[in-house]
Amino acid sequence: MQEKNMGKRGFASDNNSGVHPRILKAISRVNEDHVIAYGDDKYTIQAIARIKDIFGGDAEVFFVFNGTAANVLGLKAATESWNSVICAETAHINSDECGAPEKFTGCKLLTLPAPDGKLNVDLISRHMHSFGFEHHTQPGVVSITQATEMGTLYTPREIREIAEYAHSHGLWLHIDGARICNAAAALGVSFEEMITATGTDILSFGGTKNGLMYGEAIVFLNRSLAENFRYVRKQGMQLASKMRYIAAQFDEMLKDDLWLENSLHANKMASLLAREAGSLPNVKITRKVEINGVFACLPPAIIEPLMKEFFFYVWNEPESEVRWMTSWDTTEEDIYSFTEVLKKLLADAGYA
Amino acid sequence: MQEKNMGKRGFASDNNSGVHPRILKAISRVNEDHVIAYGDDKYTIQAIARIKDIFGGDAEVFFVFNGTAANVLGLKAATESWNSVICAETAHINSDECGAPEKFTGCKLLTLPAPDGKLNVDLISRHMHSFGFEHHTQPGVVSITQATEMGTLYTPREIREIAEYAHSHGLWLHIDGARICNAAAALGVSFEEMITATGTDILSFGGTKNGLMYGEAIVFLNRSLAENFRYVRKQGMQLASKMRYIAAQFDEMLKDDLWLENSLHANKMASLLAREAGSLPNVKITRKVEINGVFACLPPAIIEPLMKEFFFYVWNEPESEVRWMTSWDTTEEDIYSFTEVLKKLLADAGYA
Amino acid sequence: MQEKNMGKRGFASDNNSGVHPRILKAISRVNEDHVIAYGDDKYTIQAIARIKDIFGGDAEVFFVFNGTAANVLGLKAATESWNSVICAETAHINSDECGAPEKFTGCKLLTLPAPDGKLNVDLISRHMHSFGFEHHTQPGVVSITQATEMGTLYTPREIREIAEYAHSHGLWLHIDGARICNAAAALGVSFEEMITATGTDILSFGGTKNGLMYGEAIVFLNRSLAENFRYVRKQGMQLASKMRYIAAQFDEMLKDDLWLENSLHANKMASLLAREAGSLPNVKITRKVEINGVFACLPPAIIEPLMKEFFFYVWNEPESEVRWMTSWDTTEEDIYSFTEVLKKLLADAGYA
Amino acid sequence: MQEKNMGKRGFASDNNSGVHPRILKAISRVNEDHVIAYGDDKYTIQAIARIKDIFGGDAEVFFVFNGTAANVLGLKAATESWNSVICAETAHINSDECGAPEKFTGCKLLTLPAPDGKLNVDLISRHMHSFGFEHHTQPGVVSITQATEMGTLYTPREIREIAEYAHSHGLWLHIDGARICNAAAALGVSFEEMITATGTDILSFGGTKNGLMYGEAIVFLNRSLAENFRYVRKQGMQLASKMRYIAAQFDEMLKDDLWLENSLHANKMASLLAREAGSLPNVKITRKVEINGVFACLPPAIIEPLMKEFFFYVWNEPESEVRWMTSWDTTEEDIYSFTEVLKKLLADAGYA
Repeated sequence: MQEKNMGKRGFASDNNSGVHPRILKAISRVNEDHVIAYGDDKYTIQAIARIKDIFGGDAEVFFVFNGTAANVLGLKAATESWNSVICAETAHINSDECGAPEKFTGCKLLTLPAPDGKLNVDLISRHMHSFGFEHHTQPGVVSITQATEMGTLYTPREIREIAEYAHSHGLWLHIDGARICNAAAALGVSFEEMITATGTDILSFGGTKNGLMYGEAIVFLNRSLAENFRYVRKQGMQLASKMRYIAAQFDEMLKDDLWLENSLHANKMASLLAREAGSLPNVKITRKVEINGVFACLPPAIIEPLMKEFFFYVWNEPESEVRWMTSWDTTEEDIYSFTEVLKKLLADAGYA
Repeated sequence: MQEKNMGKRGFASDNNSGVHPRILKAISRVNEDHVIAYGDDKYTIQAIARIKDIFGGDAEVFFVFNGTAANVLGLKAATESWNSVICAETAHINSDECGAPEKFTGCKLLTLPAPDGKLNVDLISRHMHSFGFEHHTQPGVVSITQATEMGTLYTPREIREIAEYAHSHGLWLHIDGARICNAAAALGVSFEEMITATGTDILSFGGTKNGLMYGEAIVFLNRSLAENFRYVRKQGMQLASKMRYIAAQFDEMLKDDLWLENSLHANKMASLLAREAGSLPNVKITRKVEINGVFACLPPAIIEPLMKEFFFYVWNEPESEVRWMTSWDTTEEDIYSFTEVLKKLLADAGYA
Repeated sequence: MQEKNMGKRGFASDNNSGVHPRILKAISRVNEDHVIAYGDDKYTIQAIARIKDIFGGDAEVFFVFNGTAANVLGLKAATESWNSVICAETAHINSDECGAPEKFTGCKLLTLPAPDGKLNVDLISRHMHSFGFEHHTQPGVVSITQATEMGTLYTPREIREIAEYAHSHGLWLHIDGARICNAAAALGVSFEEMITATGTDILSFGGTKNGLMYGEAIVFLNRSLAENFRYVRKQGMQLASKMRYIAAQFDEMLKDDLWLENSLHANKMASLLAREAGSLPNVKITRKVEINGVFACLPPAIIEPLMKEFFFYVWNEPESEVRWMTSWDTTEEDIYSFTEVLKKLLADAGYA
Repeated sequence: MQEKNMGKRGFASDNNSGVHPRILKAISRVNEDHVIAYGDDKYTIQAIARIKDIFGGDAEVFFVFNGTAANVLGLKAATESWNSVICAETAHINSDECGAPEKFTGCKLLTLPAPDGKLNVDLISRHMHSFGFEHHTQPGVVSITQATEMGTLYTPREIREIAEYAHSHGLWLHIDGARICNAAAALGVSFEEMITATGTDILSFGGTKNGLMYGEAIVFLNRSLAENFRYVRKQGMQLASKMRYIAAQFDEMLKDDLWLENSLHANKMASLLAREAGSLPNVKITRKVEINGVFACLPPAIIEPLMKEFFFYVWNEPESEVRWMTSWDTTEEDIYSFTEVLKKLLADAGYA
């Protein structure tokens, strides 16, 4: 396997970036002495307390290794195998987890077309039928992504509407929050307002894409769903022995608003990139830039040479739409270097 | 949940210790710029090359987050759901993984009594029947632990005998190597001699218990079993996005024999502890000390007060047998402080 | 639970009908003496030989209890858990098996919109991507239904096109043949022409809807997929102990073309019903009648009173589209009695 | 596959026998007209009412196709995947269902040595530990077999003791009743006394081994466990479309004590066989004959020639112990013919 060519900092994904220096330091700080393994240590207890606090004090919190696990195990806690999970076609759980939700929960995913990545009551209602009919999976959970895979946002009000609708039909609401920090930063709301107060039941609280090395938290706002979660996590192969190192990262990320600083920065860099790139000829920004992702259509011939300098992914090949993600460590110079190269490639290709 | 009382360095487990300073430094070293996520980066490529090298050059290597996953996904790669996995009753996969192997592979575990934790051809042969009989799970894999959960070792010759027997019946050999480094150090053999040359098919190559923060490698000596493993890992929720940080740890551990240094030290500390504690009145070392674990019977009344000073686990309550694990960071002073306290407690209790 | 009101013979489904007298007699005939359980008996051997024969002699055949099992276990034989199964949104495996395929195979179902229930290469090609990309399930099987849930048919040529396309991408072709006999009868082709010669790999060969009491056969035209199927069936809870009674039914159904007689009759009754009902005012036959199902739009107010006399199901409530299924035992009198009532209800409601 | 040689009626198993004439007639009787599929018909309603009645009126009842499914789906209803199921090593769910329980429930089976096939509180208590410890599966169900696979019986009092012990630890009690009719007949107790009054939560109520063609009932004495069972059954591929034919069999079996007549007869034939064979030289009846099975040790050289005349299975090869099962249709002549042959073979071999 040959490593793909890439610049020092590219726009491929916010998980291509490294670990924030404060996070690394926090890891070093807890690296002394022995502590009980598997989470029964003071660092984990402290980090969990901090997370509970930002969600209003009444949640259950469990750390796992990565986002796929946070989503899958969170869903497992809220379903029986004959339930179904309602989500957007573009949801990460549907399109990017290699069937992990189906394998581990046994549930069917009922998808909905959502060009901007967002569900709403109207869409969800299409699957609100066949309750009590044994030939049909029983809808058990609505899963939305905040911010969505398309870089869009739900307002707290929109989340509340979905939560209320879901609850009124006996379903739970799960949020895939791989970029929940970017969302909170962009919306200017607290986690409590966005998650707890909206009636969300389970949140996959992402850290890795916001400057952590590894580790995500599953936050059960609905504590009853967490009752036996310790067994789900262990059987799900997601119980870390040296838990303190995940805990320390979360603790640091939530201290002095490091999460907010990182997210605001990444979001701002995306706006800058959209503005700069969007002003170039034949570059069309295709979606509203609400967090740290920019989607753009480029002349097809430009894409490959541009990738050679700064790695990124093609999102939609037929439309020659690409995705550029910024990160906590993206600099203004990165943006300008990038748009400079882009500008030159466009000019060379005769676009002006 | 209240944190359990414990000394600065105890004898509870080798996963209660922290991360070796060289490992932390290696993590810092790779913490620059962007690299492609999910393992397609130069650090991962280099670490895998190093691992392949120490196994003789012809293996497939995949990193996962923890030992349970290494075992379960390794077994999944070698089984169909109607197979069974033969292991010792005391095997970690049987007794300490909350049914994760059954849940993810669908397989039944066929256990064997093994007081010293070791299987042999004679024991295994008890399950070598009912091939082709559809009412019975079909034995598919023998799984042994090296070193065992009881601190004992297989010689390379013993492993080869089991491998040959397994292969002659159409089964694969899996080794749970959570403490494979301690084993290699104690036996004074190379990984190639112990694993590759013995005919082992799959190894869970443990790092966490030998000074790493997190991360284990699944080494497929039998490359055919790895053909589709990338999907198994992803669907198994064990694909790390920021893979370079696991890779860097393994790379460092295997450089300049850090693994050997750590393991030799931990093993040596166990010997010292066994010698010192074993010389005290009414303390009986119950098992051969081959790696970094010491099993001992103590007067029951001593156990709790001793635990208050240095945390450890009771292994067998009715026999008042305890387990003391040493680690890469255990010092001679730790041993002497511990045996001093133990001596005093014994004296206070009237043992002399 | 109160039994739904229904006439002696209704149009709800071809599984609402009873067992053909010849089938019952065949069951009685094998009801003597002891025979080895689980399929190692002369009756089962004979029935399997007969099925192999009608498929050209080179298939593997296994009986199971019902259609859901035939589909799910057939798919299990052809997939790994990280594969996906491509099918129409309206496929029975997607919409009417309560997630059984996902639960037992672990696979994701990739659906396609197909208003007439039929897939084609163009539709299937939408999912022919991401091969080798570990974040995405790997397409493993195309599953079509012959005849479809919408009463439509694939020609052998259409099946062959799909099979060739599937094979050229490394996928298998599975056919849900719950109504395969109705299809063969309607097309006037042999099973060998329709299934074996088209390159189909696995067929769920339905019996229950064609006059049997219970029992379906899984026919592996691709014998390699059947190699370990005996274990899949047993672990799948589908190994019948008194197998001879399933075997006897299939044997009889395939003897002297009973299957054909039953299917031709049911198909013919559907045509008659479509003609008679379709000639009434405000009754619109909505789909081509190719086998034994008739879909029609009725004035909404008519539906409930009509159901009181002859039970059937509403297919599409918003469109007031209903489904009428005929069966091997439907008589011309049943049709005329039914259309008489329908006519009267229409007249009473002012339609003329 | 060649059919095994066998006499008209052998002693291989009670599922080698055919269907009782009254059962066949009952099937014919319900074979008229159309009825709603999937159990919403008058025959099913009536049969369920009859079963509820014999269990005291307060149970939930579901039909499935076979015994493996009855056991596995019953256990699924009472477990989460991280639970374990406690059973005897010799339990059918452990040794004869190809891992179906593990595959479908995800649970580990915790086995206990039980030479006579029976568990008791003392044995069960060995697994009553590690509650709340996430590394260990959580014991969720005790499963016993009545009558056991070794032909032995639990008294109602013994069942009650186990039920009370299980409940006091938060576990459910499941009974595999493949031969529950033989047990009730032998004990001279009602189903209500043996099952309902003892605190049993779930019963796999066997019919096939007592003269039925196919079909078993899952009886939930603990109705709360049945709440969502309709989905478990459908997703478990065990919902019969033409349900009336299973229902009719159970209804007939329970009418006018046909079940009792059949069971008493089979049990009596086993006693006769044990008496007759046991009086022959060098034939040793090895286990108490409580129901319809006889276990005996024979001179090894006799076994194969005897099998040629009357098929049966070797139970324990090293001990040359065989198992002879009688059935509802075994005649006294069968017994005498058999013992005659046995006697002759013994004499020919020089035993007298």
